[in-house]
Formats: sequence, structure tokens, C-alpha cells
Amino acid sequence: MKFIIQRNQLIASVQNVMKAISSRTVIPILTGIKIEAKQHGITLTGSDSDISIESYIPAEENNNVNVEQIEVGSIVLHAKYFPDIVRKLPEQTVEIEADSNLKVTIRSGKAEFNLNGQDAEEYPQLPKVQTDNSFEMPIDLLKNMIKQTVFAVSAMETRPILTGVNMSLENSVLSLIATDSHRLASRTVPISNTNINFKNVIVPGKSLNELNKILDDSEETVEISVTNNQVLFRTKHLNFLSRLLEGNYPETSRLIPEQSKTTIQVKTKELLSTIDRASLLAREERNNVVRLTTQGNGLIEITSNSPEVGNVTEDLSVQMFEGEELKISFSSKYMIDALKAIEYDDVTISFTGAMRPFIMRPADDDSILQLILPVRTY
Amino acid sequence: MKFIIQRNQLIASVQNVMKAISSRTVIPILTGIKIEAKQHGITLTGSDSDISIESYIPAEENNNVNVEQIEVGSIVLHAKYFPDIVRKLPEQTVEIEADSNLKVTIRSGKAEFNLNGQDAEEYPQLPKVQTDNSFEMPIDLLKNMIKQTVFAVSAMETRPILTGVNMSLENSVLSLIATDSHRLASRTVPISNTNINFKNVIVPGKSLNELNKILDDSEETVEISVTNNQVLFRTKHLNFLSRLLEGNYPETSRLIPEQSKTTIQVKTKELLSTIDRASLLAREERNNVVRLTTQGNGLIEITSNSPEVGNVTEDLSVQMFEGEELKISFSSKYMIDALKAIEYDDVTISFTGAMRPFIMRPADDDSILQLILPVRTY
Repeated sequence: MKFIIQRNQLIASVQNVMKAISSRTVIPILTGIKIEAKQHGITLTGSDSDISIESYIPAEENNNVNVEQIEVGSIVLHAKYFPDIVRKLPEQTVEIEADSNLKVTIRSGKAEFNLNGQDAEEYPQLPKVQTDNSFEMPIDLLKNMIKQTVFAVSAMETRPILTGVNMSLENSVLSLIATDSHRLASRTVPISNTNINFKNVIVPGKSLNELNKILDDSEETVEISVTNNQVLFRTKHLNFLSRLLEGNYPETSRLIPEQSKTTIQVKTKELLSTIDRASLLAREERNNVVRLTTQGNGLIEITSNSPEVGNVTEDLSVQMFEGEELKISFSSKYMIDALKAIEYDDVTISFTGAMRPFIMRPADDDSILQLILPVRTY
Repeated sequence: MKFIIQRNQLIASVQNVMKAISSRTVIPILTGIKIEAKQHGITLTGSDSDISIESYIPAEENNNVNVEQIEVGSIVLHAKYFPDIVRKLPEQTVEIEADSNLKVTIRSGKAEFNLNGQDAEEYPQLPKVQTDNSFEMPIDLLKNMIKQTVFAVSAMETRPILTGVNMSLENSVLSLIATDSHRLASRTVPISNTNINFKNVIVPGKSLNELNKILDDSEETVEISVTNNQVLFRTKHLNFLSRLLEGNYPETSRLIPEQSKTTIQVKTKELLSTIDRASLLAREERNNVVRLTTQGNGLIEITSNSPEVGNVTEDLSVQMFEGEELKISFSSKYMIDALKAIEYDDVTISFTGAMRPFIMRPADDDSILQLILPVRTY
């Protein structure tokens, strides 16, 4: 194997596949990056067996030459050294050459590295995902959906299924739902030009977080293919493959109250900063509890009390108030996460009593829903 | 105590005094920030008893009003909560009020915090440093001197005196020297308008690191006062007080070879990046050893070898070569630190054999000296 490649292209690809590589893997060869050279371009692969990422650098693209003097072949290089070496090489181009004894030479300017590679034949084959059954969507929209839901997955392995996001596509509506059983985040978007349907596809939260980091806004669409136990996200230069979680996701629709006894509408950012300030004193306590009290005069009061440290009070104007007066306590952390996902200037909050879950939506958009269970205080 | 203060001024002062505060102090009240209001301005104090920092905000300065409605008094507030509260308050001004029961109210916009304060009378008195015996120097020059020496102090407590920097002022020349017994860094500068002399003033490396962080380039000069066991660095708004290390600093002048057998001159940055690349494979090994070999043809070769991983070789042009051919091994980390301190485009390196310390200086400046002991390789 041999090729000469533009260093900045190689750096970007290495960074992408590194997202899948863990130093704690039980399969030793997965601590490496697989490099495969074909006449049409170079493919890098990284995997921790849960997530696998392939990044492709075409030899030529838009009349630019990215890779030259290609001799086909493949090798695996240790991910502990290769990325730093590439990043620190002196020139804009890099020559990489592997001989039949798995000895790899990396040259740039006057610098020459000789590394011991591993046989690419020993690198696990990634599963082939059928891509007939696929749909496409804009990348920025998928990134938004992930940001608005994935924070609500459970961090605890006691109910593994809740560490994933429940993805479904029914009647041309794609839905992502996450819950840790104390709160729930949901987002739907219409998908045109597809008649595929699936449900109970549970993608690990960790996979979606990594996907969100490497999906590049500069590309336009991502193709999503779902099989029994894998999901593939594919863009022009990237294949992102994740295993799915096995099991049945709990039915969450019955958690969402259909009626409300108290409804308020406030400025999202004002409520967010008020809760953020109130949480400063609460952070020592379990759940960082703050309290919201309607004041009956177009104001709500946010308070928090930490006996040893002190207390904090702040009033906030509401734009709309309907229904009964209310006093309710909740986790400031959950509230901050949820408000950050609302994305619009105005948020509507619907309560059905101090002990019942409450929901938040943008004032004019039903596609985003955030639900929080209150905290009982005595 | 009561006053209304510009929030950005308060934030900056809090950040400065926080540099001295440790959550692990054995004196509970030192986990707090002392706030003292006088008619002419507000003084904040933070201390871990080794380092004490006072930051002063004048009520008026350059026709700007920083503090208003001052009622004199003082209080101590917990450093765990106060900085975040100030940072997140909604408005540009903050009102702080303490009553006789040590209850403190912080108001900004509609937000009101009530905190439990501590009695400022219980806060330790900072030692009064005689400032008759002082000299002044430019702040940027002091910051440079610190950066060029402090990295070479010992990180080990086995010889506590070596964790400090040896400061002396003799015949109008200020000198800073640091060594961990494997390398040495030294910088001198002439100080005009002073006839003070002192030597063996050992300032803890940690103090100089913190001082370097908070000294503000926008102010021009710093006044330095040395006593038996304290050193005070004073600027217009800042008093930075550090205890000194007790004991005699070793005589270091005899370490520095006076003759050389091989002298080379190279481009500082080129050598730095070459050593940096060579160290990539060496980082697993003890001391990150790299080897320099003169090639006799206007080139030196930098190599490193890590049997399991591979090896690296890079040639570098020298601008000047005098004396015997040489093969020498040394810690890449020490070399990188030293080259970063050289500050000039060209560096002169003088060797007196493979087993003897070698020294580096800027090609045209004798005031900076870096010394490294080589590593024996077999």
C-alpha cells in the first residue's frame, strides 16, 4: 500500500473515525485505525464494535486532487500514535507506505516515521446494511432532533433500554423520544418522499451524541437505513453504523397529560436564566430543587432555599396565565435542559397540579415536547 | 456595610482573589472572600496563608463611578457560591448589604440572594510588609522572566527549596534561577534607579505561576518589596503577597560549563517542532528520550526509537557548527520547555561532551540561559 495525501484531509478523517475508538476495547485490533487504499480513494475505519465509523477521502473531488500515486492495499495503525503524528507533520502532504512485513513509513518534508502496523485482514468486517429501505433528511434537522432529546436518556444501566432514544417513522412522521423516567423529551418531524414505517428502534444515546459531533452542517442530507439490530447514517463521505438496543421501549404516550389546570406562557430565556440563578444555591442538595409559585398578579416567583447557605427569590413576568394558582417544586437541572431544547422565544407550560407531570412546548410549535415530573417537598 | 457596584468590576476582582483561595484549607474562614467597604472604595481579599491577594476597586476612577452609596463595613462570603452568583446576576449593577447579624443580601434586577456571611474580624490579618525597601519594574518584563524560569522548578517535595525560584538583586541586576537538578533556567534583567541588594530570596513556583496569571499587561509597572519571609508584588489595584521558602538555595553557578567542545546554532522553532515530533513515539518511555547526532555536513539528525512502536528520524540544517562531532541523548520534555523560553529566532547550543550538561542561549542575548543534563543511553 502506498499513497500521497493532503494532510488537512487526512487530519479531518482521522478525527472523525477516532470518535468510535476506545482504548478500553477487549478486541486489541480495535485500538487501531484501519487504512484502506483503492484507486478511487482512501477509507479510514474506527470501531468499538458498538459504533463503527468509515470516513472516505476520494482521490479527486471538485477538480481537486486529494490523493496521488495510489498503490492499493490496507493496514491497521495504532490510534494512540497515528493521529498526533499526522497532526504534527511539517508539510502539507504526507506519504504513507506499508510493506509486506506490515512495516509502515510515514514521510513529510524531512521527517520520517517508521511504525509497526497490524494486518488489516484481522480487522473485523463491518456488517453490510441493506440500504434499499432508507429515507433521507436534512443534516441540520437531524442534529436538532438529537440535541432536543438525547440529554433525557437515562445515565443508569439499571434499565438499559432507557439509555437509548426511541426512534420511529410512521405515516411519514419521524419521532425521537427519550426518557429517564423522571423527565421525557420528544421531537417529531415530517419526512417527505418515503413510505417506510418502523417503530421501537432504540439507538444508544452515546451513539447519537457521537453522531451529532461528527455530522457536518456543510453537507446537506443524511441517508438513514434501519435493520433489525443496526442503524446506518450515511453522508457523502461518512458511514456511521450503530448497533441498536434490544428490548421493548416503555409506552410513553400515556405519561403525557391531556388536560391542564394551570397554563402559563413566559419568555424562554428569562425563565432559563432565573432558574439558572436559583439553582446556584440548590446545587448541594439532591436534585437541585427550585420552587415556582404563581403570584396572581402577572408574576411567577422562583425560589430556592438551602438552610446552611441562604436563599434566593426572583420574580418573573408571565405573558399569559390561565387556570388555578399553583406552587410546584422541580429539579432545576431538568428544567434547564428542557428549556434549552425549546428553541423558540416563548414557551408554554401546562400544569395539572403540584404532584403531576407538567409539559412544556414552544408557544407556536407542537413538534417539540418536554415533560418533567415534579419533586415532592415537605 | 452596603454598596452598589459595577458588576464587571466586581467579577474581575473576584476572579483575581479566587486565585489564592483553596477549598482544602485547614482554616475554615479562608474558604471565604473578605469584602471590605470604605468610602474611597472596596477591597476584596483571598488567601490560603501561603499566598494572599488583595484586589481594590476605587469608588471613582478616571471620572467613572465604580461604587456608589457606600456604607462602611466588612463581611466574609463563601467563595463556593459568591463568584457564580455575581457572574450570573441579571443587571450591570449589584447591591450588596450586610446587617449586624452577618446576613447578606445581594440584589440585581428582580433577583435577590440572602446569604449567611462570616465575621470579618475573624479573618486573619495579612502581615504588613515594609515597602521602603522596594524596586519597580515593567509588568511585561516580570511576566517574561517568570515564564522563562518557573517551569524548571522541582515538582517533588523531597528537596522543598528546589520548588522555589531563586530571586536576587545585586549591582542593579535582577536574576531569577530555577532548577530541579536535571535542568536549570535562568534570566537576568538590569533594574535602573535602585541601590537595593538582596540574594537567596526563594519564591515558591506556585506563587509565581498564580502571579503571572493575574498580572495584567494593561498596567505598566509592578513594585516589588522583599522582607525576611515575605515578598509583596504591588500594582495600582492589586497586592500579591507570598511567603518565601526557608533554607539555602544550592550554588548553581558552578553547574554552568564555561567552555564548549561543540557549538551549533539553529532556528529555534524548527528545532522545537522537530523535537516535538520525535517525542511522539518516545512518550511511553521514561524521560521521553530523543537523540541528537551531528552529521558533519551542515545537518543534525534528531531520532527517537521505541522498540514496540517504531522509530522516527528527521534532519535539520544548522546555521553554524563549530568543534567536535557529537552524539547526545536528552529528555525531549526538558528540551521543549527550554526552547519555548528562548524567545528569539536563533538559538546557540554549546556542548562539552555527551555526558556533560549543555547550555542554550538566544544567539544575540546573554540574559537568557537554559541548561539540560543529558541522559545516558546504552
